[in-house]
Amino acid sequence: MTETKPCDDHTAEQPPRGFPVDEYERRLDRAQALMADEQLEVLLVTTEENIRYFSGFHTQFFQSPTRPWFLVVPKTGKPIAIIPGIGAQSMAGTWIDDIRTWSSPDPVDDGYSLLADALQSCAGAGGRVGVPMGAETALRMALTDFDRLRDDLSDRAFVDAGGLIRALRMRKSEREIEKIAYACDRASLAFANVPTWLRRDMPDTEVFRTFKVDCLRRGLDDVSYLVGGAGRGGYNDIIAPPTGRRLQRGDVLILDTGSVFDGYFCDFDRNFAIETAEDLAKASYETVFRATEAGLAAARPGATCADLFRAMQSVMEAGGALGNDVGRLGHGLGMQLTEWPSHTSFDETVLRPGMVLTLEPGMTYSPGKMMVHEENIVIREGGCELLTRRAAPELPIVG
Amino acid sequence: MTETKPCDDHTAEQPPRGFPVDEYERRLDRAQALMADEQLEVLLVTTEENIRYFSGFHTQFFQSPTRPWFLVVPKTGKPIAIIPGIGAQSMAGTWIDDIRTWSSPDPVDDGYSLLADALQSCAGAGGRVGVPMGAETALRMALTDFDRLRDDLSDRAFVDAGGLIRALRMRKSEREIEKIAYACDRASLAFANVPTWLRRDMPDTEVFRTFKVDCLRRGLDDVSYLVGGAGRGGYNDIIAPPTGRRLQRGDVLILDTGSVFDGYFCDFDRNFAIETAEDLAKASYETVFRATEAGLAAARPGATCADLFRAMQSVMEAGGALGNDVGRLGHGLGMQLTEWPSHTSFDETVLRPGMVLTLEPGMTYSPGKMMVHEENIVIREGGCELLTRRAAPELPIVG
Repeated sequence: MTETKPCDDHTAEQPPRGFPVDEYERRLDRAQALMADEQLEVLLVTTEENIRYFSGFHTQFFQSPTRPWFLVVPKTGKPIAIIPGIGAQSMAGTWIDDIRTWSSPDPVDDGYSLLADALQSCAGAGGRVGVPMGAETALRMALTDFDRLRDDLSDRAFVDAGGLIRALRMRKSEREIEKIAYACDRASLAFANVPTWLRRDMPDTEVFRTFKVDCLRRGLDDVSYLVGGAGRGGYNDIIAPPTGRRLQRGDVLILDTGSVFDGYFCDFDRNFAIETAEDLAKASYETVFRATEAGLAAARPGATCADLFRAMQSVMEAGGALGNDVGRLGHGLGMQLTEWPSHTSFDETVLRPGMVLTLEPGMTYSPGKMMVHEENIVIREGGCELLTRRAAPELPIVG
Repeated sequence: MTETKPCDDHTAEQPPRGFPVDEYERRLDRAQALMADEQLEVLLVTTEENIRYFSGFHTQFFQSPTRPWFLVVPKTGKPIAIIPGIGAQSMAGTWIDDIRTWSSPDPVDDGYSLLADALQSCAGAGGRVGVPMGAETALRMALTDFDRLRDDLSDRAFVDAGGLIRALRMRKSEREIEKIAYACDRASLAFANVPTWLRRDMPDTEVFRTFKVDCLRRGLDDVSYLVGGAGRGGYNDIIAPPTGRRLQRGDVLILDTGSVFDGYFCDFDRNFAIETAEDLAKASYETVFRATEAGLAAARPGATCADLFRAMQSVMEAGGALGNDVGRLGHGLGMQLTEWPSHTSFDETVLRPGMVLTLEPGMTYSPGKMMVHEENIVIREGGCELLTRRAAPELPIVG
């Protein structure tokens, strides 16, 4: 029996910011156990999320592409931060002790020597250096410097640690889930409030602005991601920014938000029809709603992402789906808007408690017209728990 | 004579969204001229900004790290987009004709074959493939796929095109300047409004939220970047998120925002004292204000970034500066929060009309206490033009 607790069980109380040190100790223990399994002597990470995951270093400053940032995880002992001086004060506020800085930007040696030295002392000759470099990863440093590192440390093996990071971050701690749940709850309330202000003739720029302001007021830190689309009888683009187009009678509007609390995302959408809706749009909404129900029923430990895909896809095929350009019917989320795994026909990832996922069934129901729903869940023993307040079972008609 | 027009000259009218096709044609012409100079047969870009620069493709969807996106610029003819199917509809709305898509994510071939084929047909054996890979760049694709590309196309030379991109993007068109100016103007008004609502005992989380809402209401699309710090008599961290700490009498608060209109950033800060300020904080504010004045006077075509650095730094040294961990006294901006060049003692980049820059003098005036100012300017014939409304000449005392 699948257990799908309603979101109202969640207290709306804001979780504390940051994490106690034992959260990071546990992450490090798990990382070092996986490193031992993979015979890695050291792990190098360069992206905001991975550095934050191990250190608690939290800043929007990574939006500045100028400077590289490095965190080195040795096989024993605490991580080493190798960072521009501008971050020294913030990093000193984390649990990290070994903080090595340089004055950045430096066109000649932008942290390179410090990094090479640290890797050399953590990994002996013949040692393996793990770096996330496979699918769904990106290296956030000059490639010329990374190539040089591989040359200068050519007696070490640089190997992909993308799978290790995925294994670490895919299952969330209760404290992480609490932050995501709060983001989901606040954005759910903002979506529930949309019918009170959404009107025909409103420019989509104003729709976006009003929604963002409402999210901020309800306790979200940032509305980092808001995309959407509207079109008469249905939309055909779900990743577009607003253009200034005014809503018209008969439009179907989708808003999809990745809003953030304390560095953790929600990621879900809602659909609204303006004043009236065609029967096909209504029927498609109900089909996709039922596909989500099928996903909720299938989401339990031991099931796979492919199982979730098939559960949702079969409902949509029976409901007349003409296909889907999205490439998957949902995914993981957490410190990033989208994370592993992906609900596709070929992703055999086994669901386990603590995984936070979207269910995102979507279908084209008529040429150029899509319907996409999305909810956020966490896998629990015996089933799943909704983190979002469930969408209405029928297409909301507004105005 | 330096010409520093006041910002009030700017109309507050919102510029049109997007660009006409001739903006992209001009960018492509300039790129292909530079490619010819560098004997590049093809240019490959992978980041949101570079893809948007050449195509006009504009989405927040790059926040999802799952899928790679590629744009290939041949030595003649229009760019080729090689993108996940989810972006096909949006890309079709740009001036790009040749759009090649696949169903992504695909763990076996996530656009790799399409990319390799395109590069192979654009660059013959022995040809040079430009990819931004030097300082201040990052490759947004799996490194394992890029390594494989270099192996599979080992008879082509993959060379750094970071300098080419820098040369292209560093000078802005009037249409780009108009968007940045609008962002600066709106954020200036939001800063000017701060004294009407900022109060002692307000948690910094509430300060951030109130400022973000005000920016959105004034016409900004996003407050992508907002950092700040406050401390009794001065702050010591300028890249931190809020923690919930309440403002106290005698605090100095800095707010630094990168707010966005239509994909273009402003980036500047303002300082406020709560109810009272120590003499040293006031004097340091005035010193840094004068440093900005010196920067404004020095900012003209033909001067270098190092000239700007020295003009500002000498004022701060005379004013008792104990140093600065930021690493530079300002930088370029535009599609990103920070861009080239950097105002350092060693950056000999020559200023030219159309460069949009921050002047960001900052100094530590007492151990653990910093003062940082920031304004945004555009280099014009004979001088510079302020895009931000100039900070108050004396430390504003609020409440």
